[in-house]
Amino acid sequence: MKGSREGGDMEEEPDLEALQAWKERVGQELDRVVAFWMEHSHDKEHGGFFTCLGQDGQVYDDLKYVWLQGRQVWVYCRLYRKLKRFRSPELLDAAKAGGEFLLRYARVAPPGKKCAFVLTRDGRPVKVQRTIFSECFYTMAMNELWRVTGEARYQSEAVEMMDQIVYWVREDPSGLGRPWLPGAPASESMAVPMMLLNLVDQLGEADEELAGNYAELGDWCAQRILRHVQRDGQAVLENVSEDGEELSGCLGRHQNPGHALEAGWFLLRHAIRKGDSELRTHVIDKFLLLPFRSGWDPDHGGLFYFLDADGLCPAQLEWAMKLWWPHSEAMIAFLMGYSDSGDPALLRLFYQVAEYTFRQFRDPEHGEWFGYLNREGKVALTIKGGPFKGCFHVPRCLAMCEEMLDALVSRLA
Amino acid sequence: MKGSREGGDMEEEPDLEALQAWKERVGQELDRVVAFWMEHSHDKEHGGFFTCLGQDGQVYDDLKYVWLQGRQVWVYCRLYRKLKRFRSPELLDAAKAGGEFLLRYARVAPPGKKCAFVLTRDGRPVKVQRTIFSECFYTMAMNELWRVTGEARYQSEAVEMMDQIVYWVREDPSGLGRPWLPGAPASESMAVPMMLLNLVDQLGEADEELAGNYAELGDWCAQRILRHVQRDGQAVLENVSEDGEELSGCLGRHQNPGHALEAGWFLLRHAIRKGDSELRTHVIDKFLLLPFRSGWDPDHGGLFYFLDADGLCPAQLEWAMKLWWPHSEAMIAFLMGYSDSGDPALLRLFYQVAEYTFRQFRDPEHGEWFGYLNREGKVALTIKGGPFKGCFHVPRCLAMCEEMLDALVSRLA
Repeated sequence: MKGSREGGDMEEEPDLEALQAWKERVGQELDRVVAFWMEHSHDKEHGGFFTCLGQDGQVYDDLKYVWLQGRQVWVYCRLYRKLKRFRSPELLDAAKAGGEFLLRYARVAPPGKKCAFVLTRDGRPVKVQRTIFSECFYTMAMNELWRVTGEARYQSEAVEMMDQIVYWVREDPSGLGRPWLPGAPASESMAVPMMLLNLVDQLGEADEELAGNYAELGDWCAQRILRHVQRDGQAVLENVSEDGEELSGCLGRHQNPGHALEAGWFLLRHAIRKGDSELRTHVIDKFLLLPFRSGWDPDHGGLFYFLDADGLCPAQLEWAMKLWWPHSEAMIAFLMGYSDSGDPALLRLFYQVAEYTFRQFRDPEHGEWFGYLNREGKVALTIKGGPFKGCFHVPRCLAMCEEMLDALVSRLA
Repeated sequence: MKGSREGGDMEEEPDLEALQAWKERVGQELDRVVAFWMEHSHDKEHGGFFTCLGQDGQVYDDLKYVWLQGRQVWVYCRLYRKLKRFRSPELLDAAKAGGEFLLRYARVAPPGKKCAFVLTRDGRPVKVQRTIFSECFYTMAMNELWRVTGEARYQSEAVEMMDQIVYWVREDPSGLGRPWLPGAPASESMAVPMMLLNLVDQLGEADEELAGNYAELGDWCAQRILRHVQRDGQAVLENVSEDGEELSGCLGRHQNPGHALEAGWFLLRHAIRKGDSELRTHVIDKFLLLPFRSGWDPDHGGLFYFLDADGLCPAQLEWAMKLWWPHSEAMIAFLMGYSDSGDPALLRLFYQVAEYTFRQFRDPEHGEWFGYLNREGKVALTIKGGPFKGCFHVPRCLAMCEEMLDALVSRLA
């Protein structure tokens, strides 16, 4: 791959007007998306956020999913911190109310650190997952709250929870409550090192001491993610054995193209931070181009949700559906890949994904994006939020793309 | 509703030729379906059945799902016992090998009765569900094995497991391992009294002593199922509170039309056995006609998988898909309803569902039915079996329909 982010030796001169137009389009969309969540999702009585919202924003269930509470706090703080036009007391107050809700209710049995997966509107635990993800989004929320408020108690919460997560992942998972069963293969889901690498990036931002503390962990995460490239570099597999080998059966062949693309930009950011140009090239090849080639539907466009590495039919009912988040992640990944490498093929892929995404997922009528399309691209669920869709992937994508497009435009102008 | 199964005062004379033709069609289809499973699913090395089968029967995963092991043993024994043309040693031997596999491996920690949800090919537990369903299908398998072989050890297994299940449901569920969480509503899924009522019917068949032992339990199950009719009789809800009231949110509004129809024929059989004509009329109205009215897709035909009682969009990605089993259950329910009541509207509904089902789900090329269609009726997953689809709903439906059509034809001829 020719070109580099430092040099100007790109193969083709990018179209400045097109970049500028997308920058404006993305920025305007971000405003509309944030307005949707601000109007419909705030629980002014109990704090925290409603995320089960219908097409027009109507609350169809008042359960509070901890992943989505943490994610929305993170998004609000991040926007407040990074983009001047979002520096409003309303956004900050809602983020703080969400943070207090998490501090008070997320943990199932304090002082134990295990968090619930979903809470009632007033904070009573409904379900607990035996994974680390509620805790990861709790950590992201607390770290961002500290960054915008300067209150040390948020940062202590973040760092203590991070320690607990790392202990569960690298030392002893028994606190998560999963039973040991002799037939269950010791396997690693790519989600775990991905989330940890994202946390390393989050906690280490402009914080040399923490960045140093987590440097070895970041390298470990990157190595673990890279082990998911299997079959002589021809496939990214979602699950591998503890030794980094392919597992048998559906579990082993399972592919999630959106997840691979998301891992791609986590890894790319890690490689850029480390100045590792070999890793940058490898990541673009294996985590951006390869998942796109196998994951993009040649007939109807859009990224499949799941695939089987042998090309068999996946057993998940939703495998061929087009979900919003793989497309948000692909937009980030290709624009970051282009910004880093200058390879015009990556910019073309960004445009291809962004055109599909804006055409199929946007709701021009009520704002926010639909989350779930059928294979042909028709809206299958009219909801704007639910147990797994909240205020996160869309605004994160738009804010990051706006920032990257702005940098590209400035560089060229 | 006029007419009764005893009398001949039907409103319209049914078309004998149409009934005869459907009887033959159904019988031939049953032969093809059983041939598919006999050819592709038997694990001759370890006993038990492969159920992860591709369109042409190819094994794409060798995990053994305990629900499906128990169900296939039950189907094979039932066919062997009820239909002369299936009285083959090959069928019986496969059923016995499946039964021995279950006896040896289904329980996670013998002598404890909790069974795994899925096992490796050689019987090591992979996952455990904190529900009663593996144990229910284990019980059905063991009772049928006793009926065809006369070996008392199978019946002891069935009766002891049944005692355990009843204890978990009516006395103390703590052995199932579900944590108590203060925000989780005490709710009842209709699946639980349904499965128990089905077991009461299974164990009590031609067995006066057991039928007597379980008579009170059968009435209790029927009453519990009937409490799922809510909103002044206008909706069957899948989940209700422990007091039989509607629950709040999505959980409370959740509807599963195929499940309601299946509960319908379980209840109808119970009402016929008890000679309760008021209950028969109520069941046909609330569990057959009502779920069909709300559950049948007016645009594309077929039964929706899930609905929301307020007409909102369900949050399950697969809500609008058409699954094979609600259609199999609807065929049984409408034909049983017609056989019992003589109401020609029910025969018309049987034909409507059967025509859709045979047209959309059958695979004329390789045998067995597809399991998962999209909303428009196109095959979404080409698999013939998977973690939840095995040798059960299709052959049960076809065998029961063949028997009912045969009785109707004999009655009219």
